[in-house]
Amino acid sequence: MQDIVIDTPSVKSVIHCGSGAFDSYAPRADGKKLFVVTDSNVAKIYADLISQRFGGAAVHVIKAGEASKNYTVLLSILRAMIAAGLTRSSTVVALGGGVVGDIAGLAASLYMRGIRIVQIPTTLLSQVDSSVGGKTAIDLDGVKNVVGSFYQPQEVIVDPMFLSTLTKRELRCGLGEIVKYGGLDGEIYALLQKNKRRLFTLGFAEEVTPLCIRHKADVVTADERDTGGARKTLNLGHTTGHAFELYYKRKSHGEFVLIGTYYELYIARRLGRIDDNFADEFCSLIRRVAGAIPAYPDAEKAALVAKYDKKNDVQSRVSMIVPRAVGVSQEIVLPLEEYASLIGECAAQLKGEQR
Amino acid sequence: MQDIVIDTPSVKSVIHCGSGAFDSYAPRADGKKLFVVTDSNVAKIYADLISQRFGGAAVHVIKAGEASKNYTVLLSILRAMIAAGLTRSSTVVALGGGVVGDIAGLAASLYMRGIRIVQIPTTLLSQVDSSVGGKTAIDLDGVKNVVGSFYQPQEVIVDPMFLSTLTKRELRCGLGEIVKYGGLDGEIYALLQKNKRRLFTLGFAEEVTPLCIRHKADVVTADERDTGGARKTLNLGHTTGHAFELYYKRKSHGEFVLIGTYYELYIARRLGRIDDNFADEFCSLIRRVAGAIPAYPDAEKAALVAKYDKKNDVQSRVSMIVPRAVGVSQEIVLPLEEYASLIGECAAQLKGEQR
Repeated sequence: MQDIVIDTPSVKSVIHCGSGAFDSYAPRADGKKLFVVTDSNVAKIYADLISQRFGGAAVHVIKAGEASKNYTVLLSILRAMIAAGLTRSSTVVALGGGVVGDIAGLAASLYMRGIRIVQIPTTLLSQVDSSVGGKTAIDLDGVKNVVGSFYQPQEVIVDPMFLSTLTKRELRCGLGEIVKYGGLDGEIYALLQKNKRRLFTLGFAEEVTPLCIRHKADVVTADERDTGGARKTLNLGHTTGHAFELYYKRKSHGEFVLIGTYYELYIARRLGRIDDNFADEFCSLIRRVAGAIPAYPDAEKAALVAKYDKKNDVQSRVSMIVPRAVGVSQEIVLPLEEYASLIGECAAQLKGEQR
Repeated sequence: MQDIVIDTPSVKSVIHCGSGAFDSYAPRADGKKLFVVTDSNVAKIYADLISQRFGGAAVHVIKAGEASKNYTVLLSILRAMIAAGLTRSSTVVALGGGVVGDIAGLAASLYMRGIRIVQIPTTLLSQVDSSVGGKTAIDLDGVKNVVGSFYQPQEVIVDPMFLSTLTKRELRCGLGEIVKYGGLDGEIYALLQKNKRRLFTLGFAEEVTPLCIRHKADVVTADERDTGGARKTLNLGHTTGHAFELYYKRKSHGEFVLIGTYYELYIARRLGRIDDNFADEFCSLIRRVAGAIPAYPDAEKAALVAKYDKKNDVQSRVSMIVPRAVGVSQEIVLPLEEYASLIGECAAQLKGEQR
């Protein structure tokens, strides 16, 4: 077990990482109120664990799935917090995946202008990425994460015991973000290549998770509020991934990140902004995790959703973060139409390959 | 004209204060999008000024009044921000009183996890108090300011020209917060006593405003997130004021602060926690501004709403900030029932005086 620390002007956030992290976590709010937010899937699997560990706490269960990241669910959580009589000394516990962590984190940041929150991520994606760093959000009117806050959890409990119940698809979703870290960090890239035949094992997940968290913790410590450029890099593959996620739904966030990265690698190659061999190697890593990359017939139209991306300075110019070489990423900014047209080209090429 | 600065770990906020502040304010967002939030009263009075100064900006008008501080209005603002195509480089301008400032500030803090906001307060209350310090909020389920954030405006433009259209009742509302500062700050207390025959003049408002802002700026610089005790003092009179405000509505926030302070001075006196002569002098200052203090028949029941006060560590113990001597305040914490019973006693005494 190891502790990784994020130390920002606003707060010190400690990530307890490894086997036994959950068992050795004793809620620090002795005698204070706890409020547990979880989802319908987690509540089913871990009913006993929740009642044993958080017996006295109010437990608020939201419906599992990305569709819950909306203001109606946010409002229901805030109302339940009022009904439970939480004060400024209370603590919210987010037990679940990225959706639970994002929305419970936002609710905790807003209730009485901010009460403590502890994140206990139960999916690979939330363990390697979303539970760390204090970004909270909901979607609104078809725009991803457009309403949210920067709000660090006091503690994050990352325990691999939660991964044993995950399906292959859920592991793939987490691997989507792990591959993203592979595009940013040479050590993680090497580990991915070395383990390319066992990417879907729990052993690999347990090995790579602390590396991803450490990478993110360093970036967040340097640039908590995403203003200095460093934190922007964590959106590698996300510009197109988010656009496709909003347009096509159905697949998971992590799968869309993989698909988005694939399409953006195509753009980097077309613009001569990446070495061909490295791009080939990276694309084959993506296919290993994601399987066949969809050749979306209306990819160009879907790509136009990227005009709402938070990284854009104006809506008419799309910003994306793309790998350039091992451990090196770059920002590519293109006029919206040119970007969408290149995305369409990539889809056409994929279509051709499938014939 | 003078500049007062709040310099916190999160941001530097500059308050431009005095005649000419508005005329010399040039939106710093040249070439970037502006989004003006105002209310139906202000939009009517300042229609020309808004179109001259903010010609190209989207203008979002909310209904005037405290009732607009709710999540439906918040959501309508966020949706309008999306529809207007705001990016992270855009700036929100809050032109109006406390309600506009609180809700526009919250919307700006949430949109894309925070975009710039400039506060242009148009009421005496928002000029001396609510526009400064970065507290934003809405009410929910009968609990005052229970959903909000700490989010400093980049700039605050405090220009007395806006005060000329205010009614006596609106001036009284602002004087409620000014009297609060009188309970915290000896210099402001002396100025109130010296000017007690011209409290409702614009001349006095212009003289006292920078003193109140400077007091608040010092407190907020020392304790931005209201965790160190200093900022708590700014809630003098507000525990009972908020409880009555939620229970009785009808009167303005500032009037309830005056009434709340009066009732809490009664408690301090009953508990021997204040000098009798000072209490007499302070009560007569309050009556000068507020007129007759209402002898609420169900004051004891109304006081129970104070259990939700954010200053309470647990709901069963009520925290309030009460003046003790010139320039000195104190925290008094009482069991909920004892507090409510003393509030009932004060109402009964007021009732007796009226016979």
